[in-house]
Parts: sequence; C-alpha cells; structure tokens
Amino acid sequence: MEELVKRIQQDGDVLGDGVLKVDSLINHQVDPELMEKMGHLFAEVFANRKITKVVTIESSGIAPAIFCARQLGVPMIFARKSKSLTMNEELLTASVYSFTKQVTSTISISRKFLNESDRVLIIDDFLANGQAAKGLIELCQQAGASVEGIGILIEKSFQDGRQLLEEMGLEVVSLARIASLKEGEVTFLEADA
Amino acid sequence: MEELVKRIQQDGDVLGDGVLKVDSLINHQVDPELMEKMGHLFAEVFANRKITKVVTIESSGIAPAIFCARQLGVPMIFARKSKSLTMNEELLTASVYSFTKQVTSTISISRKFLNESDRVLIIDDFLANGQAAKGLIELCQQAGASVEGIGILIEKSFQDGRQLLEEMGLEVVSLARIASLKEGEVTFLEADA
Repeated sequence: MEELVKRIQQDGDVLGDGVLKVDSLINHQVDPELMEKMGHLFAEVFANRKITKVVTIESSGIAPAIFCARQLGVPMIFARKSKSLTMNEELLTASVYSFTKQVTSTISISRKFLNESDRVLIIDDFLANGQAAKGLIELCQQAGASVEGIGILIEKSFQDGRQLLEEMGLEVVSLARIASLKEGEVTFLEADA
Repeated sequence: MEELVKRIQQDGDVLGDGVLKVDSLINHQVDPELMEKMGHLFAEVFANRKITKVVTIESSGIAPAIFCARQLGVPMIFARKSKSLTMNEELLTASVYSFTKQVTSTISISRKFLNESDRVLIIDDFLANGQAAKGLIELCQQAGASVEGIGILIEKSFQDGRQLLEEMGLEVVSLARIASLKEGEVTFLEADA
C-alpha cells in the first residue's frame, strides 16, 4: 500500500536493533483515515473468504481490525493480554513472547466467541517473528475455527514470521514489507496489497 | 442512545458487586456497527468544540474513539497502561486505580502528541468512579491542552465519577446511564444523547 509506505518513510523512526517506531500513526497516536483505508483494503482482499469474525490482539491491532470488520459486516474480537475480573468463563489461551516488551504473556479469548463454524481473518499491526499471530492461530485452532487469512500492516521481512505462517499454509497479506532497517534506513520489498 | 440501552438489556450480564459485563459488544467481542454509530454520535454532540485530538485509554476505548476521530477528521491518541520499549521520549504520566483489575497503574502519553493548542475530546467505555478519566484529564493538563468534553459509552450513575468530572467544570455525555445493578437487574436513567 503506497500510502502506508510513504507514511513510514516520512514519519517512521528506526531505533536500532530492528525496532521501527511508528507511534505517530499506528501505535500510540493513530491516523483514523489511514486506518480506515487499511481496514477496507483487507476487507477487499479477503472478500471471497466468507469471513465470520475478525480477530486481533490488544491494543494496536484494534483500529485497523474494527474498520475491516465494519466493512465485512462481522464482529471483531480482540484477544486479551491480561485477565480481567469479568472474564469468568472458559478461556482459549496461548503463550506469546513479545520482542518489544521482552516478556512471555498469556493471551486469551473467551471460548463462547469462537466456534467450529467460524472463518477468521486475523489482523495485526506488526509481523516480525510471528509469535503473536501464531498465538492467535492457536486460539482459533482450539475453538475449531478456520483461519482464512492474515492481514498485517507492517511486515519485517528480514525476520522469519512470514515464513512460519506460510509453512502453516496460511495466506499473509502485508501492506508494507520492510527488507531492512540497517544503519537507520528503512528499505522496502514490494507489498502484497 | 436507545440502541445501546437495548443491547445492554439484551446482552449485558450483571456479575454482582456493581460489575456489568458487556464483553459481547464492547470489551472483548466488539460490534463494529454499534461502535461506528456511537463514535459518530459523539462527533455530532461535540461538533462545535473545535476538537483537535480524541484521547482514550487502551483497550476498550479505542474502537469508539477511532470512529469519532475519523468523523471529526482529527488524530486519535490512546494512552498506554504500560511502557513500551519504543517509548523513549518524554512522557506525560498519571496514576489510575482500576476497580475492575484492583490495581493502580501508571498511564502515559508521549509529550510530543499533546500541546497547549490542543482541544481534546476524551472517550472511554465506562465511567464509574472516574479515575481513568481523571488520569486522562491530568495528562491533558500537563500538556497545557484544554479538555473540551468527555464522551462515555456506559456510565454507572450510582458511582461518583460523573460528579467528580462535573465539579471540574467538564461536560460529560454518556450514551447509557445505569441507575442500579441491584439484584442482577439493570435499571437506567435517561441518557445524555
């Protein structure tokens, strides 16, 4: 997606150690118009997959996921990173290691919101080593739901997340694909959409 | 907002101890169409306030806030409950006690995203004792930004959050106002919009 690539070039900061900071448009301050365009683009790309639920993980995936779900006319579910007092029922859970936060956390979705008739589109902001997406896929598998595709805003193509997901037979659509962050420079591969 | 009240009556669960669970439409599974309507209603109500930023707190405030910000044509900022590795700059911070999670946490917004020329609309899912909203107001005050209004999906009118905010001279607009959750029954006051 040309607009996203331009915005990363314009507003992204490379912090070193493979960290790209896009907190003025995605992760902290959020550009609603860009989010809407990206959410709608995912809805268009996966239009023929008969999606019944859009699944993401709190917090940065919520904005693009809600626009995508709105466009597809289906509910959005965001997996929780911590357990709330009001989550008192059966949970689907998976362990996820976060590179950014350097901790392993347990993510969860209430069992009642996913079942074997669901066809899920997973949306997330970043794909790096694929651990968050893998955790979300595990939650879907536990529920017997099928994962119909994975929509990613920014893929770090120099890490192995995409390969991991494709080896599971899943279609990954990334709106920006980053070849390298070396020497503070962002270089891109051709995006999927 | 009649539709929200109906949905709470239909899908909300009262867990006792003043806890209302709406995780099938707001806090975990999210209804995008309802969120869009609520976000747009806030945009309409606060249309004459020259809002420059919509501010919320992760995670459940993000969906209504992004639709509101989209409609107003301004950025949305979600305050963080925990510090990310990529938050390496000056932060505005405030302490917030969460009734639901029974912990005090530090919320933060990067200093660079709010300044004295900003006119802020705060959006959140619940208003109970007002601690989360008070924390967000403190972040705005630290930046010299003016808080132009507070939009709440569900207000627990039997707790003192609304009074706290109104005593600060702030306009609170709640789309559902709950008079009582006693004996597992949800009773409502007339909503603000």
